Amino acid sequence: MQRFDILVTYDVAITTKAGLRRLRKVATVCQNYGQRVQLSVFECRVTLAQLEQLESELLSIIDPKNDSLRIYVLYGGRNRSLRAHGLDRYVDFDEPMVL
Amino acid sequence: MQRFDILVTYDVAITTKAGLRRLRKVATVCQNYGQRVQLSVFECRVTLAQLEQLESELLSIIDPKNDSLRIYVLYGGRNRSLRAHGLDRYVDFDEPMVL
Repeated sequence: MQRFDILVTYDVAITTKAGLRRLRKVATVCQNYGQRVQLSVFECRVTLAQLEQLESELLSIIDPKNDSLRIYVLYGGRNRSLRAHGLDRYVDFDEPMVL
Repeated sequence: MQRFDILVTYDVAITTKAGLRRLRKVATVCQNYGQRVQLSVFECRVTLAQLEQLESELLSIIDPKNDSLRIYVLYGGRNRSLRAHGLDRYVDFDEPMVL
């Protein structure tokens, strides 16, 4: 089954308690699908069905009038697409683990 | 000349005054190349030479031990890659402006 590398970036308005709750929920959902690489940026490797599922879960959480959610499909994969510098939290589980 | 849609995302450690200065500088540099779409996310449409220039300018600013900088080339372009929801600041200057 084809899998896509995707990027999820979000800005949630945290001026209210409800906003803080949305922020935590968004991060928790993203955690189920991939890895946090920056405070509000997650990288995930998902099937199309998982992408649709992730998107609908996130849409059920955010307040579209105050929050911003952007999902980018990285065609060609993250290794071709990405130039990472400085702190890098990402662990590539598809790479052989050297023990 | 070929132009690429790219994404610049960053986390700058703002626990010090120097960090706050780096954050402002990073945003200012990114503003010269594209549009802020979220607090720490910019979309730019650049030539390869501009991408290299942008990257080196940003590398001259960030503290690699404390900050994270990620540049993603969106192969296939942003329109194919992006699913945007909620607040969306992006203005597509390549689209005809309806007055």
